[in-house]
Amino acid sequence: MRIARAEAEGRAPFWGVVTGDGSTIRLIEGAFADWAPALTRGAGAAALRFTGETLALDSVHLLAPIERGARVMIAGVNYTKHLVEFGVAPPSQPFAFLKAYRALTGPYDPIRFPSLTSELDHEVELVAVIGAEQVDRDDPLSSVLGYTVGNDVSSRDLQRSGPKGVGMDLLAAKSQDATTPVGPWIVTRDEFAPGSPSLQMTLTVDGQVRQSASSGDMTWGVDELIRFIDARTSFDCGDILFTGSPEGVGQGTGVFLNPGEVMETRIEGIGTLRNIIGERG
Amino acid sequence: MRIARAEAEGRAPFWGVVTGDGSTIRLIEGAFADWAPALTRGAGAAALRFTGETLALDSVHLLAPIERGARVMIAGVNYTKHLVEFGVAPPSQPFAFLKAYRALTGPYDPIRFPSLTSELDHEVELVAVIGAEQVDRDDPLSSVLGYTVGNDVSSRDLQRSGPKGVGMDLLAAKSQDATTPVGPWIVTRDEFAPGSPSLQMTLTVDGQVRQSASSGDMTWGVDELIRFIDARTSFDCGDILFTGSPEGVGQGTGVFLNPGEVMETRIEGIGTLRNIIGERG
Repeated sequence: MRIARAEAEGRAPFWGVVTGDGSTIRLIEGAFADWAPALTRGAGAAALRFTGETLALDSVHLLAPIERGARVMIAGVNYTKHLVEFGVAPPSQPFAFLKAYRALTGPYDPIRFPSLTSELDHEVELVAVIGAEQVDRDDPLSSVLGYTVGNDVSSRDLQRSGPKGVGMDLLAAKSQDATTPVGPWIVTRDEFAPGSPSLQMTLTVDGQVRQSASSGDMTWGVDELIRFIDARTSFDCGDILFTGSPEGVGQGTGVFLNPGEVMETRIEGIGTLRNIIGERG
Repeated sequence: MRIARAEAEGRAPFWGVVTGDGSTIRLIEGAFADWAPALTRGAGAAALRFTGETLALDSVHLLAPIERGARVMIAGVNYTKHLVEFGVAPPSQPFAFLKAYRALTGPYDPIRFPSLTSELDHEVELVAVIGAEQVDRDDPLSSVLGYTVGNDVSSRDLQRSGPKGVGMDLLAAKSQDATTPVGPWIVTRDEFAPGSPSLQMTLTVDGQVRQSASSGDMTWGVDELIRFIDARTSFDCGDILFTGSPEGVGQGTGVFLNPGEVMETRIEGIGTLRNIIGERG
């Protein structure tokens, strides 16, 4: 099942199910927390109450599939070859931090180019959506409603501007307003093989492949990341978790993003984000 | 004016004005965003609509003065003598990161002692509350509704567990559930001298002074912190900003917190947090 969050003229943001051929969205009643726990437990469509309305998908504006108030958790250092691009040795355990909600933007929205950076960079990432009211640390994947696509767009020069002895400035690098597209929808967990997903992830800029890897290459699987993070700060229903990016980013290649370029961020079995890079400022 | 957030039997959390002698709270209608912008602009009590109810303060449970969905921003490295305790050189610019909302707890609530840490530590901090809908970067203090007291309780061993080359694990150290008391209320900006406040800050454990300093010693004033951070991630009305801690923490002295100890965190002109350290686990 594909579940999207959207807005349309004269309506508050809503959730809906994208139907088979992807041309329509059936509106769901209520907030994420009203239906996600039952759907995460495997209740299927019985977990959902439909409003009775169906809209053409191209008549709505798709949003990042997360409600305001929920958290955006980012796991870093989770692909060995990506670490090399930063000169960072493989760590002994996962690492995570928070991204500001306002950093998010819709799956087809333009990316804001922050005026403070000259090194805007991309990061394709598999994103897990927590649908349970509480994580079961003995079976972390049972807490996952499904997966979506994220592009953890980062300002590398700001990332390096953190104080010596403290570390990277991950807030400045990764929480700039309207820089991080997520979506286009959540694909529920039942559509994937059991375990932490192994999916082909591809990021192109103006059609040229920049990142191409499998989420199966992540050092710590989605289950291990959730267990580790939840022991440090409890997940809530509706939080989303970026699971790290593979190699191929501008930090390694020296090729950064430029205004007017079109970025496509695709994960097998989920979908594709398509975003134009805005003018700087 | 002192503005508190509280809950009481059978009521959703509410905001109220603590009256003169501190014995009662007059309930305000609406959410923070309904009245804070006008109050921040200096409209005084005319900005508030009272429900007509007044409750005894000792009959309510005071909460951290921030609504779910708002952000908890933490500025670090902002007192030179505190940096020495971490062996960190004075940085050339501010540094900030996000704390999870669930890390917060009420001004008189027990502090949860996370099972993963053996080095639970305290940090008295002046906390600014953003009351404007948007920060005016030319006059950042005009965006501040007022100030409250925070204790950025930190797990130092977890703080050191971050990956080499990336930095401290500030999420693990500072976002553990129910570890960070804030309150007891917001004192509005008109009650302080103009500019970034110079207020005596004191933290005691079982009556013994551990931290004693002036907020006037901060490297970057509240205005500079807000301007710096807002250029990296925009503040929303209702966000709160911890402005850094002075020296005297366990990281420097080797004396950490223990279950059963009572911590008092006081800032001149605002109030005192009083929290018992819970059992580990």
